[in-house]
Amino acid sequence: MDLEQRIRDSFDRQSLMATLEARLTAIAPGAVEITAPILPGVRQQQGHAHAALSFALGDTAAGYAALTVLPEDMEVVTSEIKIHLLAPGRGEQVLARGRVVRPGRRLVIVTADVFALREGQEHHIALLTGTMVPVPASG
Amino acid sequence: MDLEQRIRDSFDRQSLMATLEARLTAIAPGAVEITAPILPGVRQQQGHAHAALSFALGDTAAGYAALTVLPEDMEVVTSEIKIHLLAPGRGEQVLARGRVVRPGRRLVIVTADVFALREGQEHHIALLTGTMVPVPASG
Amino acid sequence: MDLEQRIRDSFDRQSLMATLEARLTAIAPGAVEITAPILPGVRQQQGHAHAALSFALGDTAAGYAALTVLPEDMEVVTSEIKIHLLAPGRGEQVLARGRVVRPGRRLVIVTADVFALREGQEHHIALLTGTMVPVPASG
Amino acid sequence: MDLEQRIRDSFDRQSLMATLEARLTAIAPGAVEITAPILPGVRQQQGHAHAALSFALGDTAAGYAALTVLPEDMEVVTSEIKIHLLAPGRGEQVLARGRVVRPGRRLVIVTADVFALREGQEHHIALLTGTMVPVPASG
Repeated sequence: MDLEQRIRDSFDRQSLMATLEARLTAIAPGAVEITAPILPGVRQQQGHAHAALSFALGDTAAGYAALTVLPEDMEVVTSEIKIHLLAPGRGEQVLARGRVVRPGRRLVIVTADVFALREGQEHHIALLTGTMVPVPASG
Repeated sequence: MDLEQRIRDSFDRQSLMATLEARLTAIAPGAVEITAPILPGVRQQQGHAHAALSFALGDTAAGYAALTVLPEDMEVVTSEIKIHLLAPGRGEQVLARGRVVRPGRRLVIVTADVFALREGQEHHIALLTGTMVPVPASG
Repeated sequence: MDLEQRIRDSFDRQSLMATLEARLTAIAPGAVEITAPILPGVRQQQGHAHAALSFALGDTAAGYAALTVLPEDMEVVTSEIKIHLLAPGRGEQVLARGRVVRPGRRLVIVTADVFALREGQEHHIALLTGTMVPVPASG
Repeated sequence: MDLEQRIRDSFDRQSLMATLEARLTAIAPGAVEITAPILPGVRQQQGHAHAALSFALGDTAAGYAALTVLPEDMEVVTSEIKIHLLAPGRGEQVLARGRVVRPGRRLVIVTADVFALREGQEHHIALLTGTMVPVPASG
C-alpha cells in the first residue's frame, strides 16, 4: 500500500478528525498539511478557534509528516509537543503544516505551523515543536 | 459576581467544552478540575482518546486556575503550553487538574495533570506546563 | 559497581560540572539533587545567575534521576527540555532536584525544580520538564 | 546609543558569556548570532559539548534578537524556553542564531537554531523556541 493511502487510512480512523471536519490537503515526504473549518462547536470564550483546534491539527499534521519518513510497518505516537499561540484563531478555516526536523529510528523531531485563513489570507496563529515515537503498526 | 460564577459563565461560552461534553468538577483558589467523557468522536487512530482531548481539558483547567488568582476584570489567554503524553488515553473519562505554579500580573505560570478514569481508577496520562497571559475582560 | 558510584563517575566526567563547581548532594531511586555556587563567572547582565546555570543543573539532575531507573549498562542523553524561569536567580547557591515522572525503556520523562538559596531559604526559580533517552553505555 | 552598541554593552555584562569565550558574531533587526569554542571545561560525560552550552548560546542569541525589536529603554528576561537536542555537540565551535517569530509589547516569541562547526561544516545540533518578556532597563 502506498504511503499516501496508508496515511489516509490512518487519518480516517481518527474520529476526532471527522468531528472537526478536517481534511488531509497535502502529503509529501516529510511534510503533511491538514485543513479544517472553524466550526461553531470548536471555539473558546471569545468566539475564536480554541487553542485545542490548532493543537489537534498541528499534532496530527506533524505526526503524519513523521510517518512519511518511517518504514511501512510503523506508526507513530506523540510523546510531547509544545505549542505557542501567536495570534487569535479568527477566520473561516485553520490549516496546519507539519514537517520533520530530524528523522530517527527511535524518535522523530517535528514542527508544525498553523495558520488561520481569513478573507483569503494566511495568518500565522501557532507554532508547534514535538517528539514523535515510532511504534510497530497494530493490526 | 463571585469567582465561581465568572468561571462557569466563561466556561459556558466555550463551545468546544460543550462539544466535548466537558464539565467543571472543582474550583478552588489556584486550582480547577474539568472532566469529560471519552466520546466516540474524540479518538485517535488506535481508538484511544486523542492527545488533543487531554490538551483541551488541561489547557482549559490551567487557564481557569490562572483566572482564580487574577482581579475580577481580567481574563486569560494561553501563550504557550507543553504537553507530555505519558500513557494512552484509555478509559471512560478524562479528568484534568490545572494548578497555578507562579502567579503574576503579566504572566501566570501553570501546570495541569491529566488522568484517564478506567474502572474507577485514575491513570496519569498527560502533564502540561504553560504560560497564561492576563488580558482585560471584553464586554 | 553500585548505582551511586556509577552516577558519581559519570558526573566526574562532565567537565562543565567542575567548571560550575557543582556537587551531587543527594542520590535516591528516581531522584537526584545537584548544588552549585553562583560563581562570579556564571551571571547574566543584571548580575543574577544566568538561566543557563539553572538549565545546566536541572538538566543534569534530571538526567541522573533517569539513570537511577535504568539497567546498569545504560546511560542517558537529553532529547528535549523545557525550562520556565520563575524568579531571578539571586542568592549564594543554586540547587536542582531532578525526578522521574514516567520511567520507560525507550524514553524517561523527567522534571526538575531549581531553587536559589538566599540567606538560608530556598526560593523556587525554575521548573523543567524533559525527555531522556536511554542509550547503551560507551566504554 | 545605537542598537548594536546597546547589545554589545549588555552582552559584555554577562559574565557567563566571558566564561564561555562567546562572541557576538552578527546583529541584525530580529536576528542575532553568537559563537563560542567548545572549551575543555564545557563538556558532558561523553566529551561532547554539554546541552547547557547550546542552551546558553541559544537563549542569549534569542534574547538579543528580541531586544532588537524593542524600544531603547527596554531589556528582556527569559520566561521559558524549550530546547530540542538534535545531535551530539561535536566539533570546534558552537554557533547559535536567534530570531524573532512574533514581536509584541508584552511578550516576544523567539526561536534559535544551534550548530556545531566541525571541519568547516555546520551541523544542526539544537532547536529552541521561547518566550522573552520586555522589562524596563535598569540603571
